[in-house]
Amino acid sequence: MEDEELLSLHAKHRGVLAISPEFAVHNKKELGEAYTPGVAVISKLIERYPELKDKYTMSGKLVALVTDGSAVLGLGNIGPAGGLPIVEGKALLYKDLSGVNAIPLTVEQVSPDEVVTTLKNMQESFAGFHLEDIAAPRCFEIEEKLAKEVNIPVYHDDQEGTAIVVLAGLINAAKVAGKQLTDLKVVINGVGASGVATARLLFAAGIKNITFVDINGPVHADSKEYNHYQTDLVKQSSDQTAYANLDEAVSGRDVFIGLSDADVLSADQVKMMADNPIIFALANPKPEIDPQVAHAAGVKIMATGSSQYPNQVNNILVFPGLYKGLLATDLNKVDFGLETAIAKEIASLVPEPTTARFVPGVFDEGVVDTVAQAVKDYAASK
Amino acid sequence: MEDEELLSLHAKHRGVLAISPEFAVHNKKELGEAYTPGVAVISKLIERYPELKDKYTMSGKLVALVTDGSAVLGLGNIGPAGGLPIVEGKALLYKDLSGVNAIPLTVEQVSPDEVVTTLKNMQESFAGFHLEDIAAPRCFEIEEKLAKEVNIPVYHDDQEGTAIVVLAGLINAAKVAGKQLTDLKVVINGVGASGVATARLLFAAGIKNITFVDINGPVHADSKEYNHYQTDLVKQSSDQTAYANLDEAVSGRDVFIGLSDADVLSADQVKMMADNPIIFALANPKPEIDPQVAHAAGVKIMATGSSQYPNQVNNILVFPGLYKGLLATDLNKVDFGLETAIAKEIASLVPEPTTARFVPGVFDEGVVDTVAQAVKDYAASK
Repeated sequence: MEDEELLSLHAKHRGVLAISPEFAVHNKKELGEAYTPGVAVISKLIERYPELKDKYTMSGKLVALVTDGSAVLGLGNIGPAGGLPIVEGKALLYKDLSGVNAIPLTVEQVSPDEVVTTLKNMQESFAGFHLEDIAAPRCFEIEEKLAKEVNIPVYHDDQEGTAIVVLAGLINAAKVAGKQLTDLKVVINGVGASGVATARLLFAAGIKNITFVDINGPVHADSKEYNHYQTDLVKQSSDQTAYANLDEAVSGRDVFIGLSDADVLSADQVKMMADNPIIFALANPKPEIDPQVAHAAGVKIMATGSSQYPNQVNNILVFPGLYKGLLATDLNKVDFGLETAIAKEIASLVPEPTTARFVPGVFDEGVVDTVAQAVKDYAASK
Repeated sequence: MEDEELLSLHAKHRGVLAISPEFAVHNKKELGEAYTPGVAVISKLIERYPELKDKYTMSGKLVALVTDGSAVLGLGNIGPAGGLPIVEGKALLYKDLSGVNAIPLTVEQVSPDEVVTTLKNMQESFAGFHLEDIAAPRCFEIEEKLAKEVNIPVYHDDQEGTAIVVLAGLINAAKVAGKQLTDLKVVINGVGASGVATARLLFAAGIKNITFVDINGPVHADSKEYNHYQTDLVKQSSDQTAYANLDEAVSGRDVFIGLSDADVLSADQVKMMADNPIIFALANPKPEIDPQVAHAAGVKIMATGSSQYPNQVNNILVFPGLYKGLLATDLNKVDFGLETAIAKEIASLVPEPTTARFVPGVFDEGVVDTVAQAVKDYAASK
């Protein structure tokens, strides 16, 4: 589709979403049912039992899909207004894929504390927060503090969404490689929002040996050029060798997870890895290594973030079903247990993984309901 | 409708509203148009020209309908969650009556400055603010500061909505009484959010002589028991007599405007008023004086806030058309000029006012479009 066409598609209705009535008001009787005096009954009931708002108002089904536009994939910091098309598109996916009602919102790039206060002050309007495209490290502070301050789920798609789908892919990739998940030696290249969250979840899932590389080279436990979210990860790893460069960091590794930039991994580096290496080159739209180059270097097990290649690792596998499930339960935290449970169920959608297909497709039947069911089962087990 | 039935009506869909897609995403091609990579084109355009967000995203058509639940008509301070059914019902009316997309939101009862900061931080998400059921005097500070801080319209329905519809009714009531609008001697009983805003607009429309009474009796310019928003109004009036009680305050007045409580005006007090008095007894659901009692005391020109009686003065006459108009213009302030223009057009919907009918009905054909056109004409005249 040409840009011109695309713009008129989005201008036609001023965006891709609308507010729609669940019933119509044409006369005084219907007015009295939908609005006053009828709603006074509901307001009084909620005044007494505030939790009933979830049953009788939209707030019980509405997800606030919030960005500050500070870290939009491939575009960088494009400001709060620039981030709107992304959250609006994601809200459309929620509705179309899982029937979840999400409202696209953008917040000014004020201090993390002020963002938290702003969202906390609005929390009764919503059933959950979906944070989107917020830059690291502010996203860590915002999510952590917000989750403590509110009593509804807080989920940052760039963090937990990516982490879940990477773990799902890795569970199957390990099977294809004939290796134990928890024995894998992993290098994560790109330790921003998604890199940090992915590492945290992989540790939680039992992987012990992870090495980290970012823009200034390998991350060491005492690196001055990296923030404490990044250096803390190194302290959790069974391997604390202070590698000098990416060559050293990838040598002998079973898995390369790229959450960074196009073309940062060379064929020579791939060849330094362990036998039968697993490459997740998730930079979008261009991966860390071109699949053709990787294959030529002997890689058989490969995923990317792009729909152009097999095994697309994409958060769309996660968030529509996640909130469909959360809205059907009383869960108010997205924790490692839940994330791991979802990852396992996504992996199980490809019961016999092969190099050609170990990650399910985003439009595969059953993805949304499988994820939603994983959430409900997890809630029931708590 | 029984309470039980009403509750299940509102529980059926969790409230009366939903988010709806303007188009469906079923495959990768549509995904690319509605979301990535398509939206990157729009995001980049908005990064460069932020004002284009109004054209290409929902934010250009979305009204934030915000309450803190601190002053709900007839219920008082029922908290942020308690206020939700009201804003949700009003959002439904927006959609059903004028096609305007409004999202019901509630904000914690934090300090006025913190409410302003909270809403300001979210402003890029919306095309306007509709404040609802916020108690006086905090509503004055919130509205005034917010309007200064943001570049989209700010409208408080309890203030400007009531003021506009009272002025509209009064324009026609004066005609019926054979009196000049600007010569009317008015007493306003109840000087909260709506009383203050109504007085301000009546002064702006040329009425000079207004007397104020509230819970502690008549308001004087130096009253210690009233706030400065209330005492400032007295200083604007041509009559600054320090009346001792309601009897004195209503004596010889042409108009009684009640924005207070049931049954606070007696038949004897009505008889003390000028010939052919105009009574707007707008307390809801029970008016300041029962229409039967008023009629027995000789009142012919009467309006109430209830749909049970003729001449219902109801904000529904205003807000759906107001925002339909605002969203079609570049206006970013709701000022006295706009309010007066709308009031005149609402009054003109009853070209030959009589005692039986001088206020149009809320479901009368043409109300919404007349108000919207008044807004557009006002914008064009600026």
